[in-house]
Amino acid sequence: MKFGGTSMAGTERIRRVANLVRKQAAGGNQVAVVVSAMAGETDRLVNFCREANALYDPAEYDVVVASGEQVTSGLLALTLQSLGAKARSWLGWQLPLRTVESHAKARVESIDGEALIASMESGEIAVIPGFQGVSDEGRITTMGRGGSDTSAVAIAAAIGADRCDIYTDVDGVYTTDPRIVAKARKLKAVTYEEMLELASVGAKVLQTRSVGLAMKEGVRVQVLSSFVGDDAVPADDLPGTMIVSEEEMNELVENGEVERQHVTGIAHDKNEAKVILTRVPDKPGAVAHIFEPLARASINVDMIIQNVGRDKGETDVTFTVPQADLARAQALLEDKRDDIGYNRLITDSKIAKISVVGVGMKSHAGVAATMFQSLADRGINIQAITTSEIKVSVMIDEDETELAVRVLHTAYGLDAADEAA
Amino acid sequence: MKFGGTSMAGTERIRRVANLVRKQAAGGNQVAVVVSAMAGETDRLVNFCREANALYDPAEYDVVVASGEQVTSGLLALTLQSLGAKARSWLGWQLPLRTVESHAKARVESIDGEALIASMESGEIAVIPGFQGVSDEGRITTMGRGGSDTSAVAIAAAIGADRCDIYTDVDGVYTTDPRIVAKARKLKAVTYEEMLELASVGAKVLQTRSVGLAMKEGVRVQVLSSFVGDDAVPADDLPGTMIVSEEEMNELVENGEVERQHVTGIAHDKNEAKVILTRVPDKPGAVAHIFEPLARASINVDMIIQNVGRDKGETDVTFTVPQADLARAQALLEDKRDDIGYNRLITDSKIAKISVVGVGMKSHAGVAATMFQSLADRGINIQAITTSEIKVSVMIDEDETELAVRVLHTAYGLDAADEAA
Repeated sequence: MKFGGTSMAGTERIRRVANLVRKQAAGGNQVAVVVSAMAGETDRLVNFCREANALYDPAEYDVVVASGEQVTSGLLALTLQSLGAKARSWLGWQLPLRTVESHAKARVESIDGEALIASMESGEIAVIPGFQGVSDEGRITTMGRGGSDTSAVAIAAAIGADRCDIYTDVDGVYTTDPRIVAKARKLKAVTYEEMLELASVGAKVLQTRSVGLAMKEGVRVQVLSSFVGDDAVPADDLPGTMIVSEEEMNELVENGEVERQHVTGIAHDKNEAKVILTRVPDKPGAVAHIFEPLARASINVDMIIQNVGRDKGETDVTFTVPQADLARAQALLEDKRDDIGYNRLITDSKIAKISVVGVGMKSHAGVAATMFQSLADRGINIQAITTSEIKVSVMIDEDETELAVRVLHTAYGLDAADEAA
Repeated sequence: MKFGGTSMAGTERIRRVANLVRKQAAGGNQVAVVVSAMAGETDRLVNFCREANALYDPAEYDVVVASGEQVTSGLLALTLQSLGAKARSWLGWQLPLRTVESHAKARVESIDGEALIASMESGEIAVIPGFQGVSDEGRITTMGRGGSDTSAVAIAAAIGADRCDIYTDVDGVYTTDPRIVAKARKLKAVTYEEMLELASVGAKVLQTRSVGLAMKEGVRVQVLSSFVGDDAVPADDLPGTMIVSEEEMNELVENGEVERQHVTGIAHDKNEAKVILTRVPDKPGAVAHIFEPLARASINVDMIIQNVGRDKGETDVTFTVPQADLARAQALLEDKRDDIGYNRLITDSKIAKISVVGVGMKSHAGVAATMFQSLADRGINIQAITTSEIKVSVMIDEDETELAVRVLHTAYGLDAADEAA
């Protein structure tokens, strides 16, 4: 079980978490719990580091910020004990949870699950601070913001957990953003690949890296709300969304537990910006001149389209970069103007990317055609298209984001009313 | 160098500490720094533990409260780096600083100084969180409130430090409490034994246990203010009080660096309470019936006086206990009334203990006589007397505390004007 900062914010909320944990343990389960720092605490600690040293040494930064999770893990163990459960905390260096030495953005290298398993078999609930590990040099490391999800999945893998339940402030993964489409439905299950596509295009339920790790390690992840169990919220026994392998998804469909859909969800992303370079020489190597410097500057280029230009031997090149990197990308491209040989550099931040995602489209043709037709019917202009095996994405004007999402949600039969029918 | 919570309260104060540390390092010294948590932080963390679990598990309590020093040690290392110094933090488990497994009141067992010395020889300033260690089981331990002084002395011993400078919010040890006697003088040096007597009777500059450890390990301790170096305060180079062995003290006197005094300082303590048991049978073993149950309840009995009673075969027994333990002592003694066989139990919290302390009195008779005469001259009644090799203590009425301290400070020639004369 993994709980985020909102769930751990203060001793009263920690008591609610402890009750959820104890309920799982009372049901005969061996439980390991991964916790975040109290909401706001990591920001407070990061701020101290910045005040102490603007160009901070990530090794000492890690010493400071890892303390937030140390506090909540001790407090959760204490609270579980006050409810009559056996519990103890296991800090990153105590397990040990070894990471590759890259302070402030460490990656899990290995976890020794032995002591943890022995403790759990003796009836103790294990409480583990997320986000932190220990380097080969014996120093504290942290995994970057949101790293607790990854800790949880890695620990679930190390102890061979049946399930990794990640409690968040949403109660599952939806067919689309419920703030845009009131009829959005909570999904019973999605595959790792679908979750990755949904996460990378804006459905920020889980840290992307944790989903990738779950897929690699075959950890069954469940996303659910820590407010389940509160009297105010009527709760099923398994109210969240399971994130599973394609094989398990197929079994769930065959058993009738999950309905087969061609499209599982619709995501949108307003954080990209479009860059157009006009009249780029249409010759081998020209495109490399554009993207090589961007890659070197760690600027992520997403959609790329090459249009035939007005004159022969020249093309227009269009692509997207994160809005946060746009200024940097622009400066780099102006710097390389002579190497690339383009005519004009045009940028546009007022774009959105809409993606339809679903493993079902592997075996079902026509998903892309439905998308293009539905958008065309409502007069929404498609500026660019990219596809993968389980995703079709289009670039449109940002102002049409909500309309496009609603139109597609209906077109693929995802509206809640459709299910009831 | 050791800095307390007031000195570490916030990044601005930590910067002042870093400047003091860098100045020592720039003077060609290898420096290890021991730090407390930010003022108020340990209270905040202790409070969380109490909220989580009133009967908290000290092992998990230690996990929570040790985080305060972890934060300040990382922040001081970062701040030193921002000033251009090389620095790194060493947590208790990283040194390791091993303690005997007694969570929340651990005692230092051993410190491996090797890594620390190697780091310092490579030019790094070592920053060490006070108050914390690691048990043989590999769990975090803490040493009880104020334990950072003890950490500092233990680390100074482990690395064979020339000096252990403890920065506090006073600037040294005075001949008496300057709030009572305006003419109190700061002492250049006191011996370990004197400091122990002064500390145990109310001069709360250093944690008593840290002085005992310094004496045992022969660590030269200097008490000085962290506000020295601030432009507002004119500072000497060594403005504090040195706490040294009797041998070194003798050398200092012979070299003329310290003036020989018969009495070094005068301490007072208002935290004791008097207990009188009247008409206790005057026979072998009777006194054991009184003090054995108190000892078993860990109640510290200090002064003991046996008066001859009115009737033959009976005596009155008077003694003092800490006021905080008075109610418990009273209940115990009432419980044992039949065993002891006393007539009345009389208690009085309105007493004070005044002590004159000095190694000089070993070789100089008449110190006690001067005390009794001076107090008698001012009509101050002495209710009880105890003496040790370097201390004479009297019990008086609490209301006469300040008067007695002033009278004695003058009588032993300790007033600042006397020095100038």
